[in-house]
Amino acid sequence: MSSNNYYDVTTWPVGNPFEDVGEVINSIIADIKQRQTAADVNDGGKPGAVIYLPPGDYRLRTQVLIDISFLRIQGSGHGFTSSSIRFNVPQEEWSGLHELWPGGSRILMDLAAGDSADESEGAAFLVKREGSPRISSVEFTDFCIDGLHFSPDGSALPAENTYVNGKTGIHVASANDSFRVNGMGFIYLEHALAIHKADALSIHDNFIAECGNCIELRGWGQASKITNNLIGAGFKGHSIYAENHGGLLITANNVFPRGASSVHLSGVTRSSVTNNRLHSFYPGMVILAEGSSENLVATNHFLRDHEPWTPFFGIDNGLDDDFGLLSVHGNDNSIFANHFSLIVDSESIRPSGTAPVIIKLAEGAGNMVSTNHVAAKDVQATSSESCFEAQVDALLASRATEGLQVTTVLVESASVHNTVLDSGSEAQVVADRTTNAVRATPGIQLTATPGM
Amino acid sequence: MSSNNYYDVTTWPVGNPFEDVGEVINSIIADIKQRQTAADVNDGGKPGAVIYLPPGDYRLRTQVLIDISFLRIQGSGHGFTSSSIRFNVPQEEWSGLHELWPGGSRILMDLAAGDSADESEGAAFLVKREGSPRISSVEFTDFCIDGLHFSPDGSALPAENTYVNGKTGIHVASANDSFRVNGMGFIYLEHALAIHKADALSIHDNFIAECGNCIELRGWGQASKITNNLIGAGFKGHSIYAENHGGLLITANNVFPRGASSVHLSGVTRSSVTNNRLHSFYPGMVILAEGSSENLVATNHFLRDHEPWTPFFGIDNGLDDDFGLLSVHGNDNSIFANHFSLIVDSESIRPSGTAPVIIKLAEGAGNMVSTNHVAAKDVQATSSESCFEAQVDALLASRATEGLQVTTVLVESASVHNTVLDSGSEAQVVADRTTNAVRATPGIQLTATPGM
Amino acid sequence: MSSNNYYDVTTWPVGNPFEDVGEVINSIIADIKQRQTAADVNDGGKPGAVIYLPPGDYRLRTQVLIDISFLRIQGSGHGFTSSSIRFNVPQEEWSGLHELWPGGSRILMDLAAGDSADESEGAAFLVKREGSPRISSVEFTDFCIDGLHFSPDGSALPAENTYVNGKTGIHVASANDSFRVNGMGFIYLEHALAIHKADALSIHDNFIAECGNCIELRGWGQASKITNNLIGAGFKGHSIYAENHGGLLITANNVFPRGASSVHLSGVTRSSVTNNRLHSFYPGMVILAEGSSENLVATNHFLRDHEPWTPFFGIDNGLDDDFGLLSVHGNDNSIFANHFSLIVDSESIRPSGTAPVIIKLAEGAGNMVSTNHVAAKDVQATSSESCFEAQVDALLASRATEGLQVTTVLVESASVHNTVLDSGSEAQVVADRTTNAVRATPGIQLTATPGM
Repeated sequence: MSSNNYYDVTTWPVGNPFEDVGEVINSIIADIKQRQTAADVNDGGKPGAVIYLPPGDYRLRTQVLIDISFLRIQGSGHGFTSSSIRFNVPQEEWSGLHELWPGGSRILMDLAAGDSADESEGAAFLVKREGSPRISSVEFTDFCIDGLHFSPDGSALPAENTYVNGKTGIHVASANDSFRVNGMGFIYLEHALAIHKADALSIHDNFIAECGNCIELRGWGQASKITNNLIGAGFKGHSIYAENHGGLLITANNVFPRGASSVHLSGVTRSSVTNNRLHSFYPGMVILAEGSSENLVATNHFLRDHEPWTPFFGIDNGLDDDFGLLSVHGNDNSIFANHFSLIVDSESIRPSGTAPVIIKLAEGAGNMVSTNHVAAKDVQATSSESCFEAQVDALLASRATEGLQVTTVLVESASVHNTVLDSGSEAQVVADRTTNAVRATPGIQLTATPGM
Repeated sequence: MSSNNYYDVTTWPVGNPFEDVGEVINSIIADIKQRQTAADVNDGGKPGAVIYLPPGDYRLRTQVLIDISFLRIQGSGHGFTSSSIRFNVPQEEWSGLHELWPGGSRILMDLAAGDSADESEGAAFLVKREGSPRISSVEFTDFCIDGLHFSPDGSALPAENTYVNGKTGIHVASANDSFRVNGMGFIYLEHALAIHKADALSIHDNFIAECGNCIELRGWGQASKITNNLIGAGFKGHSIYAENHGGLLITANNVFPRGASSVHLSGVTRSSVTNNRLHSFYPGMVILAEGSSENLVATNHFLRDHEPWTPFFGIDNGLDDDFGLLSVHGNDNSIFANHFSLIVDSESIRPSGTAPVIIKLAEGAGNMVSTNHVAAKDVQATSSESCFEAQVDALLASRATEGLQVTTVLVESASVHNTVLDSGSEAQVVADRTTNAVRATPGIQLTATPGM
Repeated sequence: MSSNNYYDVTTWPVGNPFEDVGEVINSIIADIKQRQTAADVNDGGKPGAVIYLPPGDYRLRTQVLIDISFLRIQGSGHGFTSSSIRFNVPQEEWSGLHELWPGGSRILMDLAAGDSADESEGAAFLVKREGSPRISSVEFTDFCIDGLHFSPDGSALPAENTYVNGKTGIHVASANDSFRVNGMGFIYLEHALAIHKADALSIHDNFIAECGNCIELRGWGQASKITNNLIGAGFKGHSIYAENHGGLLITANNVFPRGASSVHLSGVTRSSVTNNRLHSFYPGMVILAEGSSENLVATNHFLRDHEPWTPFFGIDNGLDDDFGLLSVHGNDNSIFANHFSLIVDSESIRPSGTAPVIIKLAEGAGNMVSTNHVAAKDVQATSSESCFEAQVDALLASRATEGLQVTTVLVESASVHNTVLDSGSEAQVVADRTTNAVRATPGIQLTATPGM
């Protein structure tokens, strides 16, 4: 029905994209499959297509199923605006607001997800194909998926602050190759982007915020990258999570609160977490879990301070301050040249009276920790009705603060043969010197340095 | 007047985009506002729009005022070509040139800016909206803003070499959220991009050159990123400037001359300047000013050499060589793993006879400086009529040079309790050892290392 | 013939884009040149154009010649799928495959390249223009160039595994400025992207795999960037190559096997190779050759392990294990904070019985090597019929392995006055201590550290 492979959801004759864009896109995919049947016409025959969503509000009531390679779904705007701030504005003030909802090329995710235990049923876009080859080069570009509302979770939290609703933006269930997710916006989804079995995946330059979980790479995978994104999950979930990946490059991301973790790697090897800006309100910012080994964690900026916004004041991820901002369960990792700022109220430290831990080598062997710098300050925690101003104030308020005692590196007895250099004073590095090599950061020497 | 939210300036019935694209875009924005009035239609109602500029020369005589969220202005080409080189070619040779001006989807910025002291009046695009929420998700993508000409500045410089003309490309005056500037070209503007009060801003993959100032983040802001840009300001201005920002990530930029600074941060905290390639013709390349604290400056490549191009030969930013290539006024910053190349004519050093300074800790406390490497060479400064070849020659001419004495780290008395490791020999690190911890980079030892 | 400067190859009246898209694009370029003749109309006149390729299979039988600035050629999909895997599937199984070929906006590169020694004759896109100014702002975006087949190379290898066919995707022959290559896919080309004499070039976010060579910057150039790409060349070629460049920024790339090298720099100065993830099956991963000096190689993750896929099992780049994973011929380079994983079968090491070398300073002076960490393991090499699963298995199989003796840094006698810090034990750093400064990574000390 199309003369070439460019489709616009607003001109497609089947369905109404404003009432159910899922029906429209599925109809377009059926058209592509009907037209592109040649297995090998003259060395080609199945080029795929692009489906365009102009800026607009497109309700989705039918799940889109993608089972063809080379499909690009593209909009003209990531459309983020904070729903969280607005839901926490008294409703009588809403009439004075310029706009209430996200925009751009926006999917209003309104699936009746039901009570299924199968998370994929709650996905706006499900990518799934059996057989060979793996589905390849599906691209999501420059549009917005909005989950609209969160749901009560049984706690005292207002429904819109729970970060749960059973909704997923994009769920990739099958092994896949060379996918791209670029320039997208995700908001108010319990899972923004859950991708299983990825090879050479690129998640680049997206805006993923106010979602329960932002990026989850599951199953296993290799040679992928998560780069240059603005990301911030809810307090229950992951901002960036990967399991059993090798050769993953996580770089140049700006990860803001309030994720339970900023980067959580489980069984991930030979990967990089470099050059990111990470900000959290809780311990456990970067976790190398389940034997995550031979990874490089370098030149990241870690900031942990307190939740400043009244609606979430007092909520945390349940971890104590001796958990570490960076926690390592694995071997042969390299932890180099990171900056850590810890800005907390000493009254709030758990367990009370202990020194917060910055880097913890919990389990494993052979890790090298070098040239890490910790700035720790004691501040009085306060909260504000205004989310944005409160955060900026907290970020900039670095001057009128007191120093705070910390353990910069804690090596537990289950982790041995590690090397810790220039990452804290003798007192700040707590490690068994008979099983680990330690060179404390030099202090001021009142006598001249010998021997030059 | 539009059936959906996609507009093309060349087909819009109001105005003539080639005579005044400002009038056309303002008319389109009025149309969007007139059509999108629903505050909350079925969880939607104000998706915004995209305004497309095909490649073409669009004169702008009326300022565009953007006061709606979710507006994307998009072209199909950043269109840079060097106007500076061409203006310095004798005019009798112009007839032999393939083309004279930038191109792509190009705004010819021709506002009568007047003599107003209000810089925003000289902006091609002014973004401004009072009230709540903050204006969100405005995007500028893939087009060119060309200021056309510079103006006499009262000096002996030809008008086209002054870098002043009162023109700004994009001026964002109000607090804003989740803006994107991607793939743009900016040229011959006194201010390319001046953004106040930014939250979660992304300035990514742009080409900003031959402008007085390139990127200026003003007022205050947080959680933003300046990534992957090609940038080079004029000798009077900033390539990248930010004030009172927290959590800013400046990474993967290639910043070339001749900005008065490459990166200038004022009152910026808990931010990252990592992994950039920085090239300047003057001292004062990276400045952490006004109490900029807890920042990470890591794995950057700094090159300072001499202006090689005749039209600007002898011009500089007024700073002496003891200012430092990197200058720090603040606390608890981390300066790790940077490479510095200083390639200057020893005859030109100011004050004469002094050793140029690479890293200066001017004021503050608690900074950690580790693992920085300086290559300093004495060369004879020369200039060339050809800009490009001269620069390439200078860049590659690393071999037939002499070593040069430098102070790799100078800690002034107003900065204390710093730690300086492996960043120069005992003689190259000038610091009071009773108030700072210093470990010099080891030299060659003629006796065996003890104790392994 | 066009009312504005937007062209679609499928609606252009001259030629048939499915039979020969080269003829169509050349006809469009002729139209642009015919229409845009004004040298200086009202400060404009030659804005260029965009040529759009919707998703589709476009055979190219005529070389495209680009000799105008501000031309963007744009598709809607990079269209990668592995041809290499499919060519190594028995042909009787092809009928069960979902698709056989790459897709997206796909050029089927079918030039009769002939036997010419002039490599540029085999290019799908040739960019070439003499005179001034340099050709500027040509952009290639979001489409696929597929070389279709490789050719017999005289060896026992099947033709489709040779990585040679005389075909190039894009060949830029003339000095150029501000080019962009973004979002492209390149496959089954002997040379994907060969660019001579580049200034301020951006190669960003592309997918370049299963090509003989991926990115080659030749001649000379400056101030360019190669960022955020997924790259993997064939065993005979370069993944990233540059010669005589200054100020090149190579960052945030994920470079996978099987290139003969991951990054090869020849005569490159004052450039950065930072923050990349590099994976190879052979020694010689990063080579700084021919006096490459004053470069920064920092926070990269290097992994060298064995070829796991049966069709290429036993093939390598001919280098012995004493070549170094990183080899430096030049002066004053900075090698900081890299992680190296070497996972090889000790039985396979060449020369037999030697310790593999990680970093070799082969020639030059004044290099600084600090804070590098090596994890070396002895595994039994095995191969698998399945490419993807084999790689993932190998990547993740880090646990059941034995340690392996390595030389972490070898300083040859032709390289002097280097500084090697914290990059291996006394025994692992092989260097003449009378001509180089060495501080070994501290080992475990059984007595207390003195003097804090």
